[in-house]
Amino acid sequence: MDEKRFEKQLQFILELDKEKNILRQTHLSGHGRRENDAEHAWHMAAMIYLLREYANEEIDLAKAMMMALIHDVVEIDAGDTYAYDEEGLATQKEREEKAADRIFGLLPEDQRDDLRNLFEEFEDYATPEARFARSMDNFQPLLLNDSNDGGDWKTHDVCRAQIEKRHETTERGSKEIAEYAMQLIDKHVKKGNIVEKK
Amino acid sequence: MDEKRFEKQLQFILELDKEKNILRQTHLSGHGRRENDAEHAWHMAAMIYLLREYANEEIDLAKAMMMALIHDVVEIDAGDTYAYDEEGLATQKEREEKAADRIFGLLPEDQRDDLRNLFEEFEDYATPEARFARSMDNFQPLLLNDSNDGGDWKTHDVCRAQIEKRHETTERGSKEIAEYAMQLIDKHVKKGNIVEKK
Repeated sequence: MDEKRFEKQLQFILELDKEKNILRQTHLSGHGRRENDAEHAWHMAAMIYLLREYANEEIDLAKAMMMALIHDVVEIDAGDTYAYDEEGLATQKEREEKAADRIFGLLPEDQRDDLRNLFEEFEDYATPEARFARSMDNFQPLLLNDSNDGGDWKTHDVCRAQIEKRHETTERGSKEIAEYAMQLIDKHVKKGNIVEKK
Repeated sequence: MDEKRFEKQLQFILELDKEKNILRQTHLSGHGRRENDAEHAWHMAAMIYLLREYANEEIDLAKAMMMALIHDVVEIDAGDTYAYDEEGLATQKEREEKAADRIFGLLPEDQRDDLRNLFEEFEDYATPEARFARSMDNFQPLLLNDSNDGGDWKTHDVCRAQIEKRHETTERGSKEIAEYAMQLIDKHVKKGNIVEKK
């Protein structure tokens, strides 16, 4: 064992631990507390495995799962940006690139490059794995929110067009799941949990 | 899409959410709060990907990662059993088998069998993936505890023999990581964080 290499790997692994303290806007099912990045990524990775039959394209499972597991790591420095926070979204890219340099830079070079590539692919919808992982990134909070009578949408007072815009990208990874997602959104508009227009 | 099949998959995925509320004895780095099952599994799966070069045998990455992601799912019904709780350990097997029947039974049959197999393999150290995933199951809390000056060991007043017994199985998945783990344990005995003998 090359101990220096191993120590670098461990330093990155310990850094990852901080994702457990980064809260998202989504609440756990059963009207629970807010979810954190690690929990969200865990859920997404399991969904990739369980729902892979609905992916538009064939995917490398391990690659897609690892992509999901680390896709939010930059939030350790850059914080979580809510999908409907327009101010935050304007500076998100720059803040996240800087964070990626520092955090992936903890790893040995070969793994730094591998994880950075996974992260960039995800950001850019560049591969089948990225497209399907991003579908899960959209669909996972939708499922939780559906189980909570749309509580997160009500809190943030988002309208149908905003939600549909976000979920447009779901079909790039899975047409079938995107269609189901649109039905769920429709249901919550009818129930008054999502406003039709602002 | 077979909607009935999809609904079963979603029911299982929503059931998984409950793992985020099952607390372990391990505390997060930085002397943080207690970790939950979902966070632990997320951390383990990322470690499988990052540390695979140290596995004794070649492993199928996606299989080992999924095994890690769901290995604690039975605790939704059976609760977490601390590694050094001897009373709890005596009834653990029975409680967990019953939970596995119910929880994996939510899935369509093919996936019920697939996940049940992953779970049983993990329990029985039956495959290279199971042996390496179990090494990570041991090593992940050791890393956190090391970062917290052995706080969890001090709280539970465990001695060297107990910890070494637990970590004996680490070498079945990775001799190199097991050796490193033993050095860490040694360090904490010397620092007085682990008692030499009870």
